[in-house]
Amino acid sequence: MRLLKAINFLLLLIPLGIAAQSRPNIILFLVDDLGWMDTSVPFAGQAMPLNQKYNTPNMDRLARTGMTFTNAYATPVCTPTRISLLTGMNAAQHGVTNWTSPWKDENTDNPDEQFAPAPWNINGLSPTPGITGTVHATPFPQLLQEAGYFTIHVGKAHWGPMGTPGVNPYNLGFMVNISGHSAGHPQSFLGQENFGNLGGKTTAQAVPDLEEYHGTETFLTEALTLEALKALQAPIRNKQPFFLNMAHYAVHVPLSPDSRFVQKYLDAGRDTAEARYAALVEGMDKSLGDILDFVHAKGLDRNTIILFMSDNGGLSLAPPRQQPAYTHNMPLRAGKGSLYEGGIRVPMLARWPRITPPGSISNCYLLAEDFFPTILEMAGIRNAKFVQTITGQSFVPALRNPTFQTPARPLIWHYPNKWINQDGPAINYHSAIRQGDWKLIYNMRSGTSMLFNLRDDLGESIDRSAEHPERVQALQLLLGQTLKAWNAPMPTQKADGKPAPFPGFF
Amino acid sequence: MRLLKAINFLLLLIPLGIAAQSRPNIILFLVDDLGWMDTSVPFAGQAMPLNQKYNTPNMDRLARTGMTFTNAYATPVCTPTRISLLTGMNAAQHGVTNWTSPWKDENTDNPDEQFAPAPWNINGLSPTPGITGTVHATPFPQLLQEAGYFTIHVGKAHWGPMGTPGVNPYNLGFMVNISGHSAGHPQSFLGQENFGNLGGKTTAQAVPDLEEYHGTETFLTEALTLEALKALQAPIRNKQPFFLNMAHYAVHVPLSPDSRFVQKYLDAGRDTAEARYAALVEGMDKSLGDILDFVHAKGLDRNTIILFMSDNGGLSLAPPRQQPAYTHNMPLRAGKGSLYEGGIRVPMLARWPRITPPGSISNCYLLAEDFFPTILEMAGIRNAKFVQTITGQSFVPALRNPTFQTPARPLIWHYPNKWINQDGPAINYHSAIRQGDWKLIYNMRSGTSMLFNLRDDLGESIDRSAEHPERVQALQLLLGQTLKAWNAPMPTQKADGKPAPFPGFF
Repeated sequence: MRLLKAINFLLLLIPLGIAAQSRPNIILFLVDDLGWMDTSVPFAGQAMPLNQKYNTPNMDRLARTGMTFTNAYATPVCTPTRISLLTGMNAAQHGVTNWTSPWKDENTDNPDEQFAPAPWNINGLSPTPGITGTVHATPFPQLLQEAGYFTIHVGKAHWGPMGTPGVNPYNLGFMVNISGHSAGHPQSFLGQENFGNLGGKTTAQAVPDLEEYHGTETFLTEALTLEALKALQAPIRNKQPFFLNMAHYAVHVPLSPDSRFVQKYLDAGRDTAEARYAALVEGMDKSLGDILDFVHAKGLDRNTIILFMSDNGGLSLAPPRQQPAYTHNMPLRAGKGSLYEGGIRVPMLARWPRITPPGSISNCYLLAEDFFPTILEMAGIRNAKFVQTITGQSFVPALRNPTFQTPARPLIWHYPNKWINQDGPAINYHSAIRQGDWKLIYNMRSGTSMLFNLRDDLGESIDRSAEHPERVQALQLLLGQTLKAWNAPMPTQKADGKPAPFPGFF
Repeated sequence: MRLLKAINFLLLLIPLGIAAQSRPNIILFLVDDLGWMDTSVPFAGQAMPLNQKYNTPNMDRLARTGMTFTNAYATPVCTPTRISLLTGMNAAQHGVTNWTSPWKDENTDNPDEQFAPAPWNINGLSPTPGITGTVHATPFPQLLQEAGYFTIHVGKAHWGPMGTPGVNPYNLGFMVNISGHSAGHPQSFLGQENFGNLGGKTTAQAVPDLEEYHGTETFLTEALTLEALKALQAPIRNKQPFFLNMAHYAVHVPLSPDSRFVQKYLDAGRDTAEARYAALVEGMDKSLGDILDFVHAKGLDRNTIILFMSDNGGLSLAPPRQQPAYTHNMPLRAGKGSLYEGGIRVPMLARWPRITPPGSISNCYLLAEDFFPTILEMAGIRNAKFVQTITGQSFVPALRNPTFQTPARPLIWHYPNKWINQDGPAINYHSAIRQGDWKLIYNMRSGTSMLFNLRDDLGESIDRSAEHPERVQALQLLLGQTLKAWNAPMPTQKADGKPAPFPGFF
């Protein structure tokens, strides 16, 4: 009898052990500012002229062995996407609609004649309540850690400014943080320049934590990769499932020349800026390859999920990119900062062995906030407790089935901010909604909307609003009602001191 | 039969589980520059006048519940001690005899008329071979990590300069690094000053990783404590044994005023520098208390070892300390940088529940390198593989038995460097040996030695060398032979281009 009790007790221990072992490792490879065309992977379904400019053999390899998402979206700038991703909330919900300053209480909006700034959350994400100018939310790495995952952040954080809890990845559920801080880009990618730690010339953008590589030829992308692989050794040794947030500073400006790759692009007659950009891209791709190789060498292929994503569309301002501006994501229109597709549609790949069919393509619509419930589902975490209301939807069904679609789902973007001094194409003070093939872009300055059909007109060159007034009205109302329900920040009209009206609420 | 097999299989799993659980957590609380008298704990056996100057109730509490070591020694400056501690090697063996610069290949020795610098390892510790100017060794945190410990470094690292592997705690076996880098002191202790991250005024001493506290009133000691407790949550939740290297920047200069404690010392009429120093000490002590409270609150008291240590004697230069210089460790003579007791004898406490008798005192001799084999023994790691030859000896026998002694063991110090521009008392170019009550200090400039009897003359005021020429000869020879066998670096005599002779080898 006593023996049987002992057996029962021991048997109880087994399922836990098995469950723990079978929980997949998850690597999120998040690139900064990588455009939809900045790769040899043909996200448009066929190779486009811009695809020829870039060499990304490891993205190709990931596409070949996993799933390519052709309709994955982010917000038009970095911080909102990164916070949506971590919290499962749309940017219009969490209210961090623009990039955050390294400095607390500093609004990064440019001054404007028509508008005073919207009351957006200029201090970013906070894991604790009561911090002025922040959204209080529970980041999914916290939930992963509580479920026994070893959680690692490497690279760009940019979830909140100095002097707030959100600046510190340790407060966001990460057990290891390498080089994540308040800044959204590196002062330099060059080890020779100490990544910007240059004594008297140091700025808030100097990359922390990588002193090992100071004064060496190591490019930032490489240094972060080496550190990430180092950090993975411990959970692998301890057979603990891990989550790695591999958040590269690449391919954001400055366009530091990566000596490993830049020369061949210059030799091919490429413009200096474009050669450097292509080298940044290739260095990022090499990092992906190194990580895939490492996972393979460790025998972890079968139980490791790889997610590849960019945080917004490719930068298409000129300078720093080559002239003409707003052409660097063609066939998509415009680039980073814009609510045209060039600013929000991003390269995305996923590999979940035994789940995603190799070489498959999904046209399912996706938003950054969908990663929150997806990753929890992947980790087998049910009934997780978090303080925010999430609107992201798990894309696990899409991973299982390439034909899975959510055609009626409205996708919402909201950018009530002034990103650059001169308004650009759908840049500054716009909101947008996509439902099925139709997309409406709302201009807060004029209160008017444009309507595009993405199936016929991926480049958003033909405004169909005059042809389809009822569709415009319906989409405007859906967009406006949603923004209103989410209490989305709107800029203040200097003329009357009132917030600009929500779409459809004139 | 099948059932019995299953039982056997399951029973096999048990001892591993139990062993894993019973491995103790280890917290090394390492203070920077804390002198033997900088505490209310009476390390001299009875309260001395200087003990009255400091309030360290949590050190008192640790002494009451653990063991006080009255004869614990470090090297006279920080980096050598920190490397001895991590590698089990004497400074004369590992050759990092002086503090390392934040910058690679930079010798921190002051220029001298008589000597060119000794060929010491100016680039510190390296976990990988082949790095110029480094000692290649396996740090014990690496061995702890391989044995399943969760290893955390918080605070001052200072094991190597930028551009070398040793600068990065992740290369030294730590799984978490918070604020450890190339610098040996903080640019500022004040959150209001961003710990020195001040845009154009930033230096290599700006403390990394704590942006959460920038612009706040949080003192550096407090910020590091909060981060350490945060980092402990994960291993505690996962029931994984941990090692925490809580390496405070306190109480090293600059003497930033800790607003929590400084006023009462000023109100008591204390000199500004001394008031700030006492506040630094009390802030450090509060951190110790917070950690003890945390361990208790988590129910980990019984299975957590606390080791308290300083990396060298108290700073006794004036300024920055109050005049007169070399009196701040009395009854010990001189301070940091010196081979008199004031520079090398340090406060040390240890609590290992069920092993160390509460309130016990050990007069056993100790060196920093003894922590290496001690900590491995505590963790139950036998037959560990490391590349260096260690000379440290486990002090576990002393922890078990307050009367345990090693009176015949020779203790060796070696400082063939020029620390300050004007030679001070046993400061610059000295070696020393202690055996039993006798201590010999060798001066490389003159080739002569002084002899002291520490039992009768703790303050080293009476040179007995003339009385005991044979003892001088014997100790000189033992010191010189040991240094020679270890290939210890010696300064080069500018007169003849040869190394200064080892003691006893004229």
